[in-house]
Formats: sequence, structure tokens, C-alpha cells
Amino acid sequence: MHPYRTHTCAQLSSANVGETVRLSGWIHRKRDHGGVLFVDLRDHYGITQIVADTDSPALPVLEGLRVESVITIEGEVKARVAETVNENLSTGEIEVFARGVTVQSAAEELPMPVADEQPYPEDIRLKYRFLDLRRETLHKNIMTRVAVIADMRARMAAAGFNEFSTPILTASSPEGARDFLVPSRIHTGKFYALPQAPQQYKQLLMVAGFDRYFQIAPCFRDEDPRADRLPGEFYQLDLEMSFVTQEEVWETMEPVIQGTFAAFAGDKAVTPAGEFPRIPYDEAMLKYGSDKPDLRNPLIISDVSAHFTQSGFGLFEKIVGSGGVVRVIPAPATHEKSRKFFDDMNDWARKEGYAGLGYVTRKGGEFGGPIAKNHGPERMAELYAELGLGENDGLFFAAGKAADAAKLAGAARIRIGEELGLIDESRFALCWIVDFPFYEYDEDEKKVDFSHNPFSMPQGGIEALEGQDPLTIKAFQYDLVCNGYEIASGSIRNHMPETMVKAFEIVGLSKADVEERFGGMYRAFQYGAPPHGGMAAGVDRIVMLLCGAKNLREITLFPMNQRAEDLLMGAPSAPEPRQLRELALRVVEPPKKEGA
Amino acid sequence: MHPYRTHTCAQLSSANVGETVRLSGWIHRKRDHGGVLFVDLRDHYGITQIVADTDSPALPVLEGLRVESVITIEGEVKARVAETVNENLSTGEIEVFARGVTVQSAAEELPMPVADEQPYPEDIRLKYRFLDLRRETLHKNIMTRVAVIADMRARMAAAGFNEFSTPILTASSPEGARDFLVPSRIHTGKFYALPQAPQQYKQLLMVAGFDRYFQIAPCFRDEDPRADRLPGEFYQLDLEMSFVTQEEVWETMEPVIQGTFAAFAGDKAVTPAGEFPRIPYDEAMLKYGSDKPDLRNPLIISDVSAHFTQSGFGLFEKIVGSGGVVRVIPAPATHEKSRKFFDDMNDWARKEGYAGLGYVTRKGGEFGGPIAKNHGPERMAELYAELGLGENDGLFFAAGKAADAAKLAGAARIRIGEELGLIDESRFALCWIVDFPFYEYDEDEKKVDFSHNPFSMPQGGIEALEGQDPLTIKAFQYDLVCNGYEIASGSIRNHMPETMVKAFEIVGLSKADVEERFGGMYRAFQYGAPPHGGMAAGVDRIVMLLCGAKNLREITLFPMNQRAEDLLMGAPSAPEPRQLRELALRVVEPPKKEGA
Repeated sequence: MHPYRTHTCAQLSSANVGETVRLSGWIHRKRDHGGVLFVDLRDHYGITQIVADTDSPALPVLEGLRVESVITIEGEVKARVAETVNENLSTGEIEVFARGVTVQSAAEELPMPVADEQPYPEDIRLKYRFLDLRRETLHKNIMTRVAVIADMRARMAAAGFNEFSTPILTASSPEGARDFLVPSRIHTGKFYALPQAPQQYKQLLMVAGFDRYFQIAPCFRDEDPRADRLPGEFYQLDLEMSFVTQEEVWETMEPVIQGTFAAFAGDKAVTPAGEFPRIPYDEAMLKYGSDKPDLRNPLIISDVSAHFTQSGFGLFEKIVGSGGVVRVIPAPATHEKSRKFFDDMNDWARKEGYAGLGYVTRKGGEFGGPIAKNHGPERMAELYAELGLGENDGLFFAAGKAADAAKLAGAARIRIGEELGLIDESRFALCWIVDFPFYEYDEDEKKVDFSHNPFSMPQGGIEALEGQDPLTIKAFQYDLVCNGYEIASGSIRNHMPETMVKAFEIVGLSKADVEERFGGMYRAFQYGAPPHGGMAAGVDRIVMLLCGAKNLREITLFPMNQRAEDLLMGAPSAPEPRQLRELALRVVEPPKKEGA
Repeated sequence: MHPYRTHTCAQLSSANVGETVRLSGWIHRKRDHGGVLFVDLRDHYGITQIVADTDSPALPVLEGLRVESVITIEGEVKARVAETVNENLSTGEIEVFARGVTVQSAAEELPMPVADEQPYPEDIRLKYRFLDLRRETLHKNIMTRVAVIADMRARMAAAGFNEFSTPILTASSPEGARDFLVPSRIHTGKFYALPQAPQQYKQLLMVAGFDRYFQIAPCFRDEDPRADRLPGEFYQLDLEMSFVTQEEVWETMEPVIQGTFAAFAGDKAVTPAGEFPRIPYDEAMLKYGSDKPDLRNPLIISDVSAHFTQSGFGLFEKIVGSGGVVRVIPAPATHEKSRKFFDDMNDWARKEGYAGLGYVTRKGGEFGGPIAKNHGPERMAELYAELGLGENDGLFFAAGKAADAAKLAGAARIRIGEELGLIDESRFALCWIVDFPFYEYDEDEKKVDFSHNPFSMPQGGIEALEGQDPLTIKAFQYDLVCNGYEIASGSIRNHMPETMVKAFEIVGLSKADVEERFGGMYRAFQYGAPPHGGMAAGVDRIVMLLCGAKNLREITLFPMNQRAEDLLMGAPSAPEPRQLRELALRVVEPPKKEGA
């Protein structure tokens, strides 16, 4: 007989009644029914009920053990009487009468409970992560994560992609976020960097002639802690294809992403592959006030500026007259809502730093509120007719400069949708946001800069760069959005050295700058580079959506805390003097924090 | 029609004759046959021959392009005439007559050739790795690597393992090799470390109740460059199992390893799963003079000390008398070998720093050489009979302290096997080396230290630690060896805190030391830890064996050079002053090198 187990804790059923078995696992719960002890024995696979009575030599041993101790039980499988069958348990038809027990590892008193998942302070959970991970929900989330990643790998392979591992010790990248640096011992004063993404390497792979690359890639950014981001490392489903258009990237990836979502969505519907809406950036900003629209929210923002070029409502007339816009968000069937509902929305907008959110109420066709009063019921009725709104629908107004109004309208759309319970929680709504602007105007630096990825191909190529207002140039660049979250981002790359130099020139960088900063890739493009493009999807975010988790730590095995500390292993820690000597480094006074 | 390709460069055959197609790829070779230009167009998948004559508008464009330029060809598929069919090419039955060409990327003059694989200086190859990777052998090796890893993943999943990613930013480990450190910006003066292996994390996963873990794990060691090791990072197939004996680890992994080897071994035979020899360490050191025996070499070392307790050959008698040993390596069928063959072996041994390698020759039953002469032909005949050697077999002698003699005999066994052409190159011979000593005596430090992994379970448990001479204790520790290379190493772990403390006590470390150095894991063992064990296999080494490559750079995508530099991306590099300021670090004078 196997020294530890003949079966896992999920395997036994009434078919095994009468067999002598051996099981190993953790004492999940103990219930003492006066001379009869029930133990829920738990392993990775499930739970089996163990029984010991005064006839069993195991009884005193089991009585003396704390929960979470690890034991091996030898015993006989018995059928439970009908009224004690547990239908929630795969092994609920049987129990194992313990003939003997071996203690593999006795548990000390626990710093946090496992069997019941009551909330516990985050720092304790992280320090004792090995206990936290035994809890049912977290254990299940981690297994979902593992399964999602395996599923992605299988789908990518089926789509003809090969998985390549790119270097983790690499060069500091002058673009993007802050790098983690790794001092070189052999080259004093020089540093490697951990990759923020394998962007340059994957493009080099295309230049090297590997046609379809993917990687479940660890990425590293030394950013200040943020609620929606774990410090340190995160994972991307990173991919790149040669000789493709952006449409081909979308057509290739929709079945992969849809397939993975559908496999783990449970009851929820997922936008079918081939049917992901492709929404131009400008349209998204207008209709949803966001480049990450939640399409489960049926509300659509409209621009009604034309209605207010002349209006009794002077504020809007003035805004439109000075080049601003008026955007509206419907609030359907709000005739029963109190004035407070509308005023609260306005208060919320002010708290968020906006001038305010105007509104019109409507009940049985009757308009209410100052905007309607000043604008006049006839003109309001015209506006409503144009928007297709009914006699019990309210309307919120966001006015101002286009970018500000779009942002407010977008935030209001989300809030109104939630307040009115309009979000369809039963599905994952996927869409592409396409035609991003290539450049944007950086108000702080007072100059034109890249909006996103400087390595993207501008639409219209070098001719557009040479002849067009940079701020009107679009890029072959796209995001994939699900339920209001950006879950992937990609582009067709600029593989032409001259176009690359021109693109950087517009943001004020010379050819020499390009050569210095992106030497590996720029050099590569001189020697035969294929047109190529790809994307990177956020694995952590996707797993979080699929698990319905609210926090990245709930789907991450060994996360750091928000202060970028690994409380379990004690990282970061002070190095030994020898280590600093070898690296020829000295720790000096930290720089003063801004404002300190 | 697709803007870049209707087919890959490996797809067209005589079935496509007459079709109009579009192909994209690199100009692999150009041959100008006076008014007719042949282009071998290459992509990841294969090569297709393109033809352009004076009728084709593509001709002048193609003539003007350098090899390795990327082009898109539109043309007509034509059957080749019988005598020009190329049977070595999947597309060898056809060629594409070019009607048009689009230049996607014109290549500058190349710093190194692609189409012909003549040797080129390593530094050029690394700087222009994107060109190097286009070469047939390297491209193929990388694809083998990719396929081997995918194959391992599939086999591990089929064996019930789940793949977990463990943190890359973690704590410095006080054991093993030198860590790469990563300065923390938020915690001035503190550092993360890159993992040398996920050892502690995988054990914590077992304590957390995840039953079977594996990972294709990136590992990092800041070691001085060595010929058989790439600087920086390497990959392990890392795995761990709960509630297992070492036999179960072997039984589980033999089909995985054998399966992967067999899938990529081509014509070579692979030791069948279930038949990997399990050779105790002591036996391996005796019979093969190595814990990494190449079992393709049929030669077996024997200890013949008993024959020399009294001998006319005084040197051996003296060695045996003072506690030394005499080991012999047969040199079968060497009757035709000259005296020089034997003397050269002796010279080689001296050059390697040994006192010398004695020998006996034999031809038609007649012994030769000073050992035979002094020991006497009758006693030699007795020795030969015991060893089962014949009348034309020579014999080499390694004598001295047991460890030294074993080492010399092991090295001589390899050399004799090679010189006599006895290595069976047609197979991958796999075996386990088991029962490693738990401790060894460190001659430099004059103290007992761990032989290998301090986290291994000593055979006999705490009783052995308490009652036995430490140097006689074996560990549940094992290596997997293939053709003379260690390709994996593992053990059953010590999951018992008291046994762990005792094990460290013997090498002079206190309980407080254990708590300080391995706090995460030591703490975990207090709260219910399952018996567990596993191993880690060297992915790079396995791929190298399967590719028949001689150098790790030939199976690695973007390797660093032997000075730990990435010549392609320019790493490591000097940081910007801002970066050092943020990390509160200053570069100081490097430490003096020893002896400088």
C-alpha cells in the first residue's frame, strides 16, 4: 500500500464501500459528538469525512491535533446513512472509519483561520500566504488562473503561434514607465534592466523571421503603488505576427480571447468571435466618453451642441459659442425618481471636480428642471425626438471643452447606468477600440508627443508624417476592451527606418537619438524587416474578470503588499556588505521627496 | 487578395499550378542566368523559387535588391520541368513566375551572411543576432527548443501537474550561488533578488496544498562566466509533488523525460521509461568514477585493492597498505595498440595533475608492462579471470586515496572509451544517481557541510541525525543523468521543523540562523506541511543534447556573451544619474580583484 494515500480526498464514493484505504491531507474541521469524532480531511482535490470512535486507536491522536495538521488515515470506507449523505460533496455518500493515523506534521496554533473565510487583515494574510492559499476561494482563484493560462497557451498554439522566452536581464528602456535596474558585478557602474514588456525582442523575432510569436511574459515596472496594479511584476499574453494587417490580428485573436473567456465564463455570455465591435477612438470618446467603454451599459452619449447655438439656457449657448460642446446622457424611466436622485448626481460631479452635471427630468411628457425651463418645452421635445427618448426619460448634460465634457459624460454614463441598474451583469462584452491618435499635445511639456506606442505605424505612412497636422494622424493601433477594462493593446509596427526617424523627429528626437535609444531594433530594420504587428493582453486583469475578484491579490499566488514588500519571504532586505562591495555600490542619503 | 501573402513559402506544390498567388519573404539567394533571374524566397516555413525574366516588370526591381531584403511577389505558379525539380524542397515541383513585386524593406549591405552558414565571429553574430537567427541551423535549433518546451508542458499537464508562476522579484537567498540584486526605490538601501531557483516557493506551494506543481522557470545566478554555462538566466523544468516517495517521483518523471527525449531523438534510442537504472552514488563513484556516468560507455571500473595487499609491485602495496585503493579500467582488444597508446594515456593523466595512470598490456595472453612484470603473470591472470577480461585486453590502473583514484579512473574511463571508439553514439542513456551523501567534509573550512540541498530529507530522519556519523548519512536525493551530463536533480524535502533545525545544527547553524535565513519556509512548516519532494531539470542542457549542439548559445534566442553583455541591446549600460538618485545609490571604486 502506498505510504501516504491510495486515493485523494475527492475520489471515494459508494463504489468503494468496504475497501481499506489510506488518505492524506489537512484536518479541515473537527466535530466532537461525544465519543465520536468527525474530521473533514482536506487535500487539493476535495474533502472526505473521517470518523473515529472509542473503538479506534486513532481517536486520542486525532483529539490531540489542531486543525490544519497533516495526517495520514488508514481505515475502512463505509456508506453514510441516508440522512447524513452530503450532496454538496463529491465524497458525500461515504465516510472513512479510521483504524490508524500517522501524524505527518502537527500544526501550531494558527495565526489565521483557514476553514472559514472570514475577512482577515491583509498583512497577516500575506505573511502567512501559505495558509491564506489553503482557503477555498483563493485556492480556487489560483487554480482558475493556472487553467486560464494553460487554456491561452493551447489556443495560441492551435492558432499557429510558437512560444518563445525573451531575456529578463536586458537593457534599460528609455520609454514608458520606470525600469527596475540590476547592477552588473562584472561591469562596475553598469546596470541591466528588467523588461517592462518584451516589445523590442518580439519585434526582433519577427525581423529574425519567426512568423508567429507568443509568450506568457513576465513584465516589470517600478511604479508607485496603485490600487488597481500590483507592485513589481505582472503577466502579459504577448504576441506578434509577420505579414499581417490589423484586421488579421483581430481576426486571429478574437477566437483565442473569446474561447478563453467562454471556457471560464460560467453562465455568462461572451461576445462571439467575429462579432467584436470595432469602434474608432473618436467615436468611443463621443458615445461612451471613454476609450474603455463598458458595452454592457446601454446608455449612449450624444452631442447636442447644435441644439444650443441659440438657447434660453445662456450657459450652454455661451459654451457652444466659445467652441465648447454639450453632451447628453439619457436616464431612461426615471419618472419615479425624486429630485434628490438628480441633485445627487450633480453633487457627485462637483465632488469629482467638474463644474456640474445639468439635468432635465420628464414625467408623463412633462419636462422639469432649469435647463428645460430656460430652453423651452418645444425645443426640448425636438431634442428628445431626435434622441429617441420617451415621455418618462430624464436627461443629464455635460458641457464644456470637448475633452472635459467627454470625460464627465463618460463618468456620468457609468454612474447613471449603475444607479439605474442598467448594467447587464450576465455577460462579458468585448470590443476593439481602433484608430487611436498617433500623437497628442502634451500640455505640461507644451509639445507634441506620442499618444501610446512610438513603434506603431502611422496611418498614411511617411506621407502623412510629412504632409499632415500631426495631431490629426491616426495610428494602426488598437485596444481590446471588456466590461469597461482595457484588457489588451496592440498595433501594426513601424518597420521602416525612415518612417521611424520621421515619426521621432516630430516629437523632437533626432536620428541619433533613435539610434542611441533603440539601437538594436533600429539596426535590425536596415537589414530586411517584414511588416508586422501584434498585441499584449493583461493576463492578471483577464483572470480577475473571470474570477469575479475585486483585487489583483485575490488572483495572485505570492503578491507583494502595496508598499512593494514580500512579507512572506522578507523582501526587499538589506544586502550583506560583501554584496554591495562586489557590486561597487554604496547606499547614500535618499533624495528628498517632493514637497518634503 | 491578402496584401502580403496567399500562401507561405512552404505551401505551393504542383496542385497549385496555374494559380495566381502572392508570397512574402526574404531574398535568400539570387541567381542571374542572363536575362532570367532566380530568387529563393524564404520565410519561416520554407523556400519557394521565384523566376523573373525580361517579360516581368519585377526583374529590374529584383535585380536592384540585396539579399535579405523583404519583398512581396505576385505571380503565377508554374510546374518546373522534370530536370529542375528540387526534391529537397517541399515546393521543389513548382516555381512562381513574378508578375509584380513590392519592396517591403530593402536590406543594406549585410555585416554577416545568412544563406551560407560559414563560421563567423561570435561577437558579430551576437550583435546582429536577428541575422544570425535567420540561419538555417540556429533557426531550427530555436524551433526545436520551442517544441521541446511545449512538449514538456503537455506531458506535465497529462501527468496531473499544474503550472504556477512564482515571483521573480524575491528575497536574497543565503545558500547557493551569488544572487542578482535589484535595488528597491521605495525602500532605500534594500534590495530584492532574482531567484536562483523557485525552491522555497515551490515548497510553500506544497504547504499551501497545491498537490502537483511545475513551471518552466527562469532562474538567475550571478556567476563568473564558464564555458558550459551562459551568464545570467537559464530555464528549469521545475516540479514538486506532495505525499510522495522518491520512487514515485522517478516513476512519474520517467515517462515525461523519456517521452520528450524520444519525441526529438530522431534515430537515436532512448532508455525506456520504467527502465532507468537507479545507481547509488557510492556505486557510481566506484564503477564509473563519477556521479554523472555516461552509460553509453561500456567500460566498468573495478576495485582490485585486495589483489595488491601483497604484491611485487611495491607502489600499489604501499598505497593499499596506507588505506588507499587500486582501481582498474579495462581497455578491451588493445593487443594491436602500440606502447605509445598506453604511454600517451599516462602522460595525459600527469598533465591532468595525477601521479600517473599505470597499465598492463596483453596480447595473445602475454602480459606486458612494469606492473605485470612485478606483480607476476600468475597473479595477473587471477586478476583478469576475476574481471572477466580476455587475452587481448589491456588494463589501466588508478591508485591513491579513494576519492582521487575514483576521479582519475572516471576521467580515464571516458578517455579510453573515446579513444577506443566504444561510445555508442546512437542512443540517449538515462539513469538515476541515488542515495547521495547528505553531508560532506569541507577541507577548506575544516567542517562538515551539506553536500547538496540542505532542504533534503536525511535517510533515517532525525534519528540518523542524532545517532549516526554525519558523513555516513545518505539523503533522499537524486540526480538524473544522460550521456554523462546531469540533466536534473531533486530530493524528498525535509518538511519537519525539528529535523530541519537538527540538520542545520550539524553544519554549525542555530535555530535562530534557520529562522533568519529561511523564515518563510521554516514558519510554514509549523502549520501543517505535507511530505513532499520533486526535482528540477535543466531545459537548456536537454535542448542542447537533443539538438546535438556544442554550445548553449546555439540553442538560446538572445544569449549574452561570455562577458555577460547583451551586444544586441547594449546591456548592461550606464544608468542615468536620475535613476541612481532615485535608488539612492552611488557607484564607488570597484573592489580589488584577488591577486591584483
